[in-house]
Formats: sequence, C-alpha cells, structure tokens
Amino acid sequence: MTSEIRPVRVVGISGSLRAASYNTAALKAAIALAPEGMTIETAEIGDLPHYNDDVRLAGYPPQVQRFRDQLSAADAILFVTPEYNYSIPGVLKNAIDWASRPPSPPFDNKPVAIMGASMGVLGTARAQYQLRQMLVFLNAFPVNKPEVMIGAAQTKFDAAGVLTDEPTKDFIRELLKSLAAWTARLR
Amino acid sequence: MTSEIRPVRVVGISGSLRAASYNTAALKAAIALAPEGMTIETAEIGDLPHYNDDVRLAGYPPQVQRFRDQLSAADAILFVTPEYNYSIPGVLKNAIDWASRPPSPPFDNKPVAIMGASMGVLGTARAQYQLRQMLVFLNAFPVNKPEVMIGAAQTKFDAAGVLTDEPTKDFIRELLKSLAAWTARLR
Amino acid sequence: MTSEIRPVRVVGISGSLRAASYNTAALKAAIALAPEGMTIETAEIGDLPHYNDDVRLAGYPPQVQRFRDQLSAADAILFVTPEYNYSIPGVLKNAIDWASRPPSPPFDNKPVAIMGASMGVLGTARAQYQLRQMLVFLNAFPVNKPEVMIGAAQTKFDAAGVLTDEPTKDFIRELLKSLAAWTARLR
Amino acid sequence: MTSEIRPVRVVGISGSLRAASYNTAALKAAIALAPEGMTIETAEIGDLPHYNDDVRLAGYPPQVQRFRDQLSAADAILFVTPEYNYSIPGVLKNAIDWASRPPSPPFDNKPVAIMGASMGVLGTARAQYQLRQMLVFLNAFPVNKPEVMIGAAQTKFDAAGVLTDEPTKDFIRELLKSLAAWTARLR
Repeated sequence: MTSEIRPVRVVGISGSLRAASYNTAALKAAIALAPEGMTIETAEIGDLPHYNDDVRLAGYPPQVQRFRDQLSAADAILFVTPEYNYSIPGVLKNAIDWASRPPSPPFDNKPVAIMGASMGVLGTARAQYQLRQMLVFLNAFPVNKPEVMIGAAQTKFDAAGVLTDEPTKDFIRELLKSLAAWTARLR
Repeated sequence: MTSEIRPVRVVGISGSLRAASYNTAALKAAIALAPEGMTIETAEIGDLPHYNDDVRLAGYPPQVQRFRDQLSAADAILFVTPEYNYSIPGVLKNAIDWASRPPSPPFDNKPVAIMGASMGVLGTARAQYQLRQMLVFLNAFPVNKPEVMIGAAQTKFDAAGVLTDEPTKDFIRELLKSLAAWTARLR
Repeated sequence: MTSEIRPVRVVGISGSLRAASYNTAALKAAIALAPEGMTIETAEIGDLPHYNDDVRLAGYPPQVQRFRDQLSAADAILFVTPEYNYSIPGVLKNAIDWASRPPSPPFDNKPVAIMGASMGVLGTARAQYQLRQMLVFLNAFPVNKPEVMIGAAQTKFDAAGVLTDEPTKDFIRELLKSLAAWTARLR
Repeated sequence: MTSEIRPVRVVGISGSLRAASYNTAALKAAIALAPEGMTIETAEIGDLPHYNDDVRLAGYPPQVQRFRDQLSAADAILFVTPEYNYSIPGVLKNAIDWASRPPSPPFDNKPVAIMGASMGVLGTARAQYQLRQMLVFLNAFPVNKPEVMIGAAQTKFDAAGVLTDEPTKDFIRELLKSLAAWTARLR
C-alpha cells in the first residue's frame, strides 16, 4: 500500500449538439478543473444512428462500436446534460440506448457523475432525476452529492463559452473529487 | 346541438423502429380497434435528424416540418412506446424535442393517450411515467385511465404481429373511447 | 346561458404542520388572491391517524370522514406542499392515502392545482412531480401551467408570514385563474 | 486479513401497519432467508407522530429518538414497502422525514436494499422509484439489482402470512446477498 494516486480515466458526454452549448462548455470546464490523477476525454454522440434493434442484431455500426469501446475503457462516466421537455435530450437517450445492450454493457458497474446547465432556475434538475432512474437499469452507480445544477447559465459563462462563475467552478471541482473518491471506494 | 359524433383525428406514434416491433403492432391494432368517429394515422419518426438547436434556428428540416404539421393537424395524440432503460426510447424523445419548440408547439393543449408493450411484466410502466412528466412541460393533457401496459407481449401477438389477446384488445378499446371522451370534454 | 360566473369551491391543503410554515402562509396568500367566484377553505390533516387498512375496514375514524367529506364537497383541490427528502411530506401523503379509498374516492375526477415553497432554489419541484404521479392513480386532473415553485421563500414572506413578493403574488393569481378556467373546462 | 465474514446488522422497515400485511410478511421472510453473517431486526414506525418541525426543534420525542438510534446503529437498511397511490405510504415517508434531520442523519452514507409486495402485477415498482429519488437526498446508496417487486402477492403467501413461493424466496435471498456484498464494498 502506497500513497500513490491511482489514475481515473473518465469519459464525459455532453447531451447537446449545438456549437455554443452551455453543457458542452461545462464539460470543457470540467476537463480543466479535474483533480490530479483524473483525465476526462469527451465522447461524440451526434453521429450515432437512431437505435434500431434490427440494426443492432446485424452488428453494431462502427461509430456505435467506437462509442461503446470508449465507454468500456473508462473507469467512470460524467454526464453533462441539458434538460429538454423535463428529461434528457433524445440524442443523449439514444446514445444510452446503444450502450445498454450486450455484450458487456459498458455502463454496467461504472461510477457516474451528473451535472447540467440551463438558462432557467432549476438547472436541469428534472432531467437529472429521470437520468438517475435510467442508471438503475444500467447498473451504474451515480455519486449522490453534490448535485451540480447550473441555473441561469447565461450569467455564468462568457461570450466565448468559458465558465467564469467561481462558485460553479467550486461545485464542479467538488463533484469531480467526489467522483474520484467514489471510484476508489467502488474498486 | 345534435346527436352527431364529431370526428376525432388522432396521430399515433410508435417509439420503436424495428420491423417486428410489438409497439408498432399495438399501434396497428389500435387503428383497427378505434371507435366510430375516430381515425388514427401514424407518424414517421425514424427519419428525423438528431435535435440540434443550431439546425432549428436555421429552419426546420423538411421531415421535421412534415412531422410538426402532421401533429398540429391532429385533434389528439396516441403514444405507443417501448421501454428502453426505464424510459422512452431516444428516438421517440428526439421526436418530442423537435415538436416542442415554437412557433405553435404542436403538443400544446392536446389530449393524449399512452400505451406500451414489453416482454417483461411491467409493460413499459416506468417509461410511461417519465413520458407523463414530459407532457407537463408540453402542456398536453393525458388520459388518466386506463393505463395500457402490455406485459409479456410475446404471448399476446401472433407471429405476423397481429394482436390476438382479447383482454388486451378490450383495454385498447377502452383507452381509445376514453381518449374520444376526453377530447370532447376538453373542446 | 348567461354571463354569470359559476362559483368554484376549492379546498386547500398545506402539507406542513409547523406554525410558521411558508407553505401554510402561501395558502393564506392564495385565499386572499383568489379570483372572483372562487372561495378557498383549508383542510386540517395533522389530526388524521396513520393510514392503516385494518382501521379503514372497521370504519373511517371521524376526523378522516370529516376530511373526506370536505374534499368530496369541493369543486377543486389546491395542494400547497413543502418538499421533504425530494418528495411530499409524509403527513400529506398520509392524508392522500386516506382520501384515496372507496367509496367515492374524493379526488376522483377533480381539477387540481399545485404550488409549494422552499428556502432553496428549486421551490419544491421534485415534490411536485412525485405528487403529479400520485394524481394519475387518483384520477385527478392537475393544471399544467403555471407551475408555482416559490424558491428562496425566506425573502418573499415577512416576519408575520405575509407574502410580500409581488411576482410571486402574480404567479399565484395566475395559477388560481388557471384552476378556475380548468374547472369550467372539465365540467 | 482473514476469511472471516464481517457481520452485517440490518434494520428492516415495513411500510404497512395492517396486521396481515404482505409487506410485513415479506420482511419476516427476509429475516429467515438472511445469509450467514447478516441479522435483520425490525423497526417500528406506527407510533411516530406526524413530522412537525416545531416539535423537532423542541427535541425529538422519545419514540423518534429510539427509531433514529436504531437506524444509526445499523450497518444497512432494508425497506419493504407497499405502494399506495403510486408512491410509498405516508407512514413510511413520515418515518423517513424524522430520520432525515440533524444531527447525524441516520440514513447518511448507508447501504440500502428495497423490496415490496402488492396484489397487482407491478409489485410496487412505482413506489420503489419514488423511494430511490428520496435516497439521493438522504445520501444513502441503494443496491441496483435485483429489484424485488412481488406482484400477485395473494398467490405467494399462505393464509398465515408465510411466504411459500420459491422463486420469490430466491429473489429475496439474492437481494440480501447483494446487500451484504454492497455493504462490504462500501466499507
């Protein structure tokens, strides 16, 4: 037993496809704020086809296989999700649907952290609880605290999409530390 | 005031893309079981692109506009949804995301009925309650009863996808009558 | 057919028992802000025993019967709920449990409005969506909009528990007008 | 490090007060089916008063303090919950409300297992997901799998309330083993 920090490789998924997305910007902020020993790479979900079980049975399309392999290689997952219609975006749900199937579903037994940004006050709360229900099926283990719900996002990022709000940076730092500790605890 | 039945035009949406889907089969069954005065046409959602707000701002793609127009022209909506990962499929959520935006969001103020089929015992219950939460944002009004959750679907449809289970047919008939009455009540 | 306003008798239920409750204060505010033709009386839930089906089968206790009768006589229900542990308080759920049973369950087919107050930013959002799921079983019909979630309640009521925040008053006025219109629509 | 099994002391809570409750019977079955090294004692919740924050501030009533102390001394919690109105019973929520407050909220950081029994097919599924949302606030960590939802309970217990259905016994055994492993993993 040593004092070495065991590295944690995280895959971060933004649920928004728009170029100036606050959620994609929050994921970029998380990459910069990750604690020592944690690396966060991003996953692409915009090029996945709509889930269709007939397609799955004929063999995962290459971009789906790439996405699944990327998740499988990760120690932990970071979801950064907008809230559309009181749930997560369809495009993010679609990515989850592809990742949920055999063999070796890549979310299985994985530590997970959740954050999200919105222009309203609730900061994607409703989407996050729906996502947590999905994680029960996926047998993933989300961090309980802190719950990072970035409301009034338009006041917390600058015009270039850089997170400038210090309390929000602290929440993200705390979430990532919590994810690192949770990952170590579940090992 | 006369005893005439005012026709109800319903758009039915299946959340599954696979050819032999029990949910698409249940929607076909609903079309055949609709009460006098109700017509159900189906909407295509598999050809909609992933929702991207940048794309929306540049103008709805033609297949999205077609989907939105079809919903707008309807008196009521029938969702027939599988359950993927304890929620509705990404492809169905994506269709909802496109339909939720201005101008004149087409679900606004619409009567809605929900049903779903699965091979397990819960019959898509979890997906249906997540969908009901989305409908609050959409300002749609779902029928409360009956809740049609077709469990053990593989025992209720024949090899050609025809619904053969009489109690299930009765539930669907009851749901559609309830939708017709609810539509009349909300007019 | 005349231009007369048909009166709407509402029963309002606060989910909090503490004397200086923001939710009880919000219910008092609603009574004062009710539109012409609407009267709101309050229901007592603190003296109901814990629900026990053996007790029910032996006959509803008098305070339960009183509560059920009061609800039955109402045209509509107004829930004013705190959020405890991301849901409605046990004491409010207990009252709902008593009111849900035969004969003639008193929430059945009733229009409902929901509001809530909390010291945090979410303003009881999580409790309200859990309550909405319960209303499906009860076959009650909640107003969709506006959703009145009074966050930072400590800044919106004075020391005597009087609601002083004008935007919040407007939200409550709008909710009650919406409830009146919804009640008329469902008649 | 030895091969010794570290004992796991579980407190089991039935959400039903009726004498012949299937849920209380399921909790009794769990006690008998517990794996080596696990003991399950039951907690009483029917004598707790309705939660009232004024009462709390004046000092926890003795029966509340007893309940909190019992939970605090446990290594893990087992909820056995009926479904009333698509959620957990008010009496169970009330017990959670008392247990959620400072100092040292007794659910904090505790491993949890959930099961439930109902006469319908869904076996308390809706109540269980609402409970899982509460556990996020409580910072408790529920086992994901198996989800024990005992539907058609009237066919699985005999007239004396003894669980006779072998597959259900196996599910409960599996849940308790999963809880033991989860408790060890979180230590």
